[in-house]
Amino acid sequence: MSRNVLLLPGDGIGPEIVAEAEKVLNKVNDQFNLGLTFDKALVGGAAIDATDSPLPDETLEKARNADAILLGAVGGPQWDSLPMAKRPEKGLLGLRSNLQLFANLRPAILYPQLASASSLKPEVVSGLDILIVRELTGGIYFGQPRGVRELENGERQGYNTYQYTESEIRRIGRVAFEAAQQRGKKLCSVDKANVLEVTVLWREIMEDLKREYPDVELSHMYVDNAAMQLVRAPKQFDVIVTGNMFGDILSDEAAMLTGSIGMLPSASLNSEKQGMYEPCHGSAPDIAGQGIANPLATIISAAMMLRYSLNEEKAAEAIEAAVSKVLDQGLRTADIMSDGGQKVSTREMGEAVLSAL
Amino acid sequence: MSRNVLLLPGDGIGPEIVAEAEKVLNKVNDQFNLGLTFDKALVGGAAIDATDSPLPDETLEKARNADAILLGAVGGPQWDSLPMAKRPEKGLLGLRSNLQLFANLRPAILYPQLASASSLKPEVVSGLDILIVRELTGGIYFGQPRGVRELENGERQGYNTYQYTESEIRRIGRVAFEAAQQRGKKLCSVDKANVLEVTVLWREIMEDLKREYPDVELSHMYVDNAAMQLVRAPKQFDVIVTGNMFGDILSDEAAMLTGSIGMLPSASLNSEKQGMYEPCHGSAPDIAGQGIANPLATIISAAMMLRYSLNEEKAAEAIEAAVSKVLDQGLRTADIMSDGGQKVSTREMGEAVLSAL
Ligand SMILES: [Mg+2]
Ligand SMILES: [Mg+2]
Repeated sequence: MSRNVLLLPGDGIGPEIVAEAEKVLNKVNDQFNLGLTFDKALVGGAAIDATDSPLPDETLEKARNADAILLGAVGGPQWDSLPMAKRPEKGLLGLRSNLQLFANLRPAILYPQLASASSLKPEVVSGLDILIVRELTGGIYFGQPRGVRELENGERQGYNTYQYTESEIRRIGRVAFEAAQQRGKKLCSVDKANVLEVTVLWREIMEDLKREYPDVELSHMYVDNAAMQLVRAPKQFDVIVTGNMFGDILSDEAAMLTGSIGMLPSASLNSEKQGMYEPCHGSAPDIAGQGIANPLATIISAAMMLRYSLNEEKAAEAIEAAVSKVLDQGLRTADIMSDGGQKVSTREMGEAVLSAL
Repeated sequence: MSRNVLLLPGDGIGPEIVAEAEKVLNKVNDQFNLGLTFDKALVGGAAIDATDSPLPDETLEKARNADAILLGAVGGPQWDSLPMAKRPEKGLLGLRSNLQLFANLRPAILYPQLASASSLKPEVVSGLDILIVRELTGGIYFGQPRGVRELENGERQGYNTYQYTESEIRRIGRVAFEAAQQRGKKLCSVDKANVLEVTVLWREIMEDLKREYPDVELSHMYVDNAAMQLVRAPKQFDVIVTGNMFGDILSDEAAMLTGSIGMLPSASLNSEKQGMYEPCHGSAPDIAGQGIANPLATIISAAMMLRYSLNEEKAAEAIEAAVSKVLDQGLRTADIMSDGGQKVSTREMGEAVLSAL
């Protein structure tokens, strides 16, 4: 069985970090006999420069046929003056909507070796390992009607619609319950069911799903309390599931608990487990081409890809263990550098992971 | 000029903590010749027990005529089985809507003496002093239409409406700009203007208001980034202004940064600066009547009342200085107790503040 992985290096530091992840993928492909084949395509600013579109037809076609996609990052100042519809970011949004990547998986993991980077006390965050499952293609960011209207008294009113259907809630709920089954078997659904009807339905469907996953312990938490609990005692969580907007807020808050965004991967999946994987950090145009970017979030994204889209848990764990080993060795790119560390380049970090495999 | 303050002890620990704040108010009333008169009324569960309503007409009438209201807390398990409309919390909601208390002021202050209570590193939070101004009577929590409807395909969809008019944004904006003028002259408006039209209008109005407050430096931040920045470097903020839902989330997150919710006051104001002041913590029925509750959040709420509704800055500062002094002395109620502190009762803490005045 041959499975195809599409690499989308993108812009800024994207090509540099994807190159290191590609080497790592090649090595585990051999080691574990995964039978992966690789292809490459343009997206974002790089695609605009070459084809005048952030998501060329050829790229979309390749993405549709891929079992999984590994993306670097898109965007940069040279494309900021383009009209909204032509921006590099539209390349990502186009992939998400065309492939129906409704499930965003955002781990917040703090490697013990990097605990000092967090603004929280080490004992509060060391060993943190949360997975936030965020609905990505619905909710208030996509709800209709929306806009700015003029009221009868002549003043303007802005309005947006927060909405979810049963089936939208059910499909993201399943992803979360299944992720919890693979992990610590604890799922916390975050809503605002004491105020918002849309999340009353959300809670009802989550309760309903629970019966299909008797091995998972389901709890519910209001979003304001969740924002507090993430600060107070983040290790109480295993998997969190929530809607698009709450997930946007909480996944970023959770990421920052670790203090090292350069280490965090993410995944966006559809119902067939086809997925797009990318680091949480951006294209960092200010350091692009200097060979100093941290490739680890992209390498860890590749591990996530093996786990969630390609069902190759062992290869995923091997990569994660190799990353942990290079951190143990004290190797640090500039963004995670601290006293006693050994500063390495993008390539040196990639090579170290390869050697540790 | 005589000004009237209405005391609403409420339920649980409410009567105990309001009693201490009342003593403190009486003392500054004499010391600073404030000319305050005090009245008392029932609200919440206590009012339900006596009158069958969480907000009796008499209480509402007294509240309307008061210059400011100091509330303890409402609620407790004995009223949890009542129908929604008869719950103790409805007493508060009724006061907010009847008095049009649209501006919720939520300070997040970390007294250096309590820095160790925070889950964040002392250097990140020590001396933290943020004010979050949250719109309280509009936005998605009150927007229409709302509910759960059946779609044509037979499945249900939950929906809520996030909406703000220009005038709603303008009036909360003014409160925030004026608060910033009284403080560090920095205002950060939090929105999601890259996605939500209602907050595009929000940002436009804030920009428009800026011209009336040239001494205040206005910045804008997306809500997901704000949730991160509060964790990463909370001291970068002075005043934050945002809508009802984002304010709900961020003010609770900011409160938890301090690690001592038992110290945090809040205010809810209308256009005439009439306001209701209350501690952020709840009625804590589990420790009610034991004389061990922390009265400081209520005492600091009284200071806020003097500052924002009664324009008595000096008396407010005197109370705050007295609180800081008793903390310096090492006095701690159980909730903020730590090594080396001297554990005191509710009354002892109140008396210590009185002596320090
Ligand atoms: Mg975000
Ligand atoms: Mg709240």
